[in-house]
Amino acid sequence: MRPVCVVGAGMSQWGEVWRKSFRELFVDAARAAIADAGVDHIDSLYVGCMTGGLFVGQEHIGALMADYLGMPGIPAAHVESACASGGIAFRQAFIEVGSGLSEIVMASGVEKMTDCSGDEATAALATAADAEYEVFNGATFPGLYALMAHAHMHKYGTTRAMLTAVAVKNHHNGSMNPFAQYPFKLKPETVETSVMVADPLRILDCSPITDGAAAVIVCSEEVAKKLRRPYIKVLGSGLATDIMQLAQREDITTIKSATLASQRALKMAGKQISDIQFAEVHDCFTIAEIMVAESIGKYKPGQAGAAFLAGESALDGKFPINPSGGLKSKGHPVGATGVAQVVEVFKQLTGKAENGRQIKGAPKLAMTQNMGGTGASSVVHIMEVA
Amino acid sequence: MRPVCVVGAGMSQWGEVWRKSFRELFVDAARAAIADAGVDHIDSLYVGCMTGGLFVGQEHIGALMADYLGMPGIPAAHVESACASGGIAFRQAFIEVGSGLSEIVMASGVEKMTDCSGDEATAALATAADAEYEVFNGATFPGLYALMAHAHMHKYGTTRAMLTAVAVKNHHNGSMNPFAQYPFKLKPETVETSVMVADPLRILDCSPITDGAAAVIVCSEEVAKKLRRPYIKVLGSGLATDIMQLAQREDITTIKSATLASQRALKMAGKQISDIQFAEVHDCFTIAEIMVAESIGKYKPGQAGAAFLAGESALDGKFPINPSGGLKSKGHPVGATGVAQVVEVFKQLTGKAENGRQIKGAPKLAMTQNMGGTGASSVVHIMEVA
Repeated sequence: MRPVCVVGAGMSQWGEVWRKSFRELFVDAARAAIADAGVDHIDSLYVGCMTGGLFVGQEHIGALMADYLGMPGIPAAHVESACASGGIAFRQAFIEVGSGLSEIVMASGVEKMTDCSGDEATAALATAADAEYEVFNGATFPGLYALMAHAHMHKYGTTRAMLTAVAVKNHHNGSMNPFAQYPFKLKPETVETSVMVADPLRILDCSPITDGAAAVIVCSEEVAKKLRRPYIKVLGSGLATDIMQLAQREDITTIKSATLASQRALKMAGKQISDIQFAEVHDCFTIAEIMVAESIGKYKPGQAGAAFLAGESALDGKFPINPSGGLKSKGHPVGATGVAQVVEVFKQLTGKAENGRQIKGAPKLAMTQNMGGTGASSVVHIMEVA
Repeated sequence: MRPVCVVGAGMSQWGEVWRKSFRELFVDAARAAIADAGVDHIDSLYVGCMTGGLFVGQEHIGALMADYLGMPGIPAAHVESACASGGIAFRQAFIEVGSGLSEIVMASGVEKMTDCSGDEATAALATAADAEYEVFNGATFPGLYALMAHAHMHKYGTTRAMLTAVAVKNHHNGSMNPFAQYPFKLKPETVETSVMVADPLRILDCSPITDGAAAVIVCSEEVAKKLRRPYIKVLGSGLATDIMQLAQREDITTIKSATLASQRALKMAGKQISDIQFAEVHDCFTIAEIMVAESIGKYKPGQAGAAFLAGESALDGKFPINPSGGLKSKGHPVGATGVAQVVEVFKQLTGKAENGRQIKGAPKLAMTQNMGGTGASSVVHIMEVA
């Protein structure tokens, strides 16, 4: 495969966006990415979306979005891997450009989650778990992650304060992100007295329900150079799956798909985890950020929580995690999240992160980790400034 | 891109399969394809499915199917383009192998459509149309294709007998396909007196609601040669979209996405449409087979119907279409259809079509055309015997 680059990034408004429809959110992000890259066309389009069918009664999403972008005719496809759908969209764009088939491909993600009721949204999200063995028996995602959190606390002594540290840090970062759904800072006591959802997870341990879209322009290095704008290179891509049911996994205190995907991406990039300078990871719940930081190999099992309490994952820490505010503060329109992670890495590596959110010292190498469900899939990408 | 081959194909039972679940149908097809190819592993998996969310309450379909195939860990992704989802799965496998990233990739498709009511299935299928401008106003697919049929009849004088000829020919072919849902022959008068669904389309002009799965093994030529079994080469892949709403298209008597996708695939293959010896096309309704045969460039606009009446598309005709029985007789589990078209081409080109369905004269070059909705997307592939 030939080298693959990212030359532009865009986001729609994120939040409870009543005045924009599913397709309008996509078009906003797509147009922003096209303008940012300065390209005059795209050769093809990938759209990550978890379930347009259940959230807004719309499938055939690739074709619809190409149409509403004003580009009917172009090749377009919708990809899905639950909350990792955006990561898959980026990976397919990476493969298509890397193969030489296309020069300029848009990787995008979109989800419109607030057009249905809370019950309907919970049911739609539950389709990321095993319908026959988990959902049928009443499992929802806060409940499943609560099981994982308790197991991690029992095995490693992970504490309430460590979970809190993730929420507080991500809301601090998100307070500087103009696209964040909840751009406010949190005090630890606010997190720890918020309403219980599924013990030990409180509402402020959970990422929100979000409407939003994100898009990036992926291209060959030849095109990237011609555009004469800052760009980044995609050095590695790793995708892995795992057993879907928690009950059948050997160990629910680690995310095996994140480990495998990280290893695959690092191997392709020819890098070690110690080379990575910061990461955007899938903090759908506070416990997830702890487990992922361990699963990708950055921390030994059971050691991430203490490191986070000591400030290592802060913007000015040794290994910043989720400078964007993460899913917690920025929001989690499930199909868009994986692409928004790339948007943040692109901004950070090209020095364009807004409002003082820029990581100091001009980092050069970053990782994104996007996860489906309770980790039955993970997509990891490694990117370097050009 | 390097050369890409198909070395094995498999199908589950197709029909109203009450005794197999969504995941079991997939596993049946996947295991059959693996056995047919003689491979001992796959590097990654694509699953085409239109809407597991609406039909069976299950998304995260790539990971789930990798798990139930007994291969958790492998890269897997679900792709969607309504009824062209299977074609997209095959195209992504083609790109991934062509890029050099993987050696052996499974392209599969699955849909379980009879676990919900007929009303629910109609609503699920309607998500392939424009939810805001078509479905909200009451459009369903038989109604949309009826509009296209009337326009085609008005413009070109296409007749009831021409539609009937498509149904009769496809059921004749399907009567020899052991996987067909409706493997019985039809008399013209049976078609023409069957119940009206949406004028002029009667029930026997419509493809059925089907449970089923299909899978093929896509690999590099190096791997294909080592396996020492008959294989075929994928010479070209074309994907195109179109305006989704019928009301906004310039001309609803042609499928522009099929024209574009056919041109792109032929160009990549370095072939002309006149080189193609037979085709599997998307006959979701009888009128669709006529419109597609014209749109891919095989017949001039308005001339396919008369050619079909004259027997040109029959198994022993000048240009056999849908030797498998097509969607009409074989069935149409929407996400699986595009892959099943490749299964038939693989069988025909390697001389393995069952029960006297084999096209005489050992054809060497074939096309598949798989379509989403009323043609807002089309995927075309061109394959040649190795």
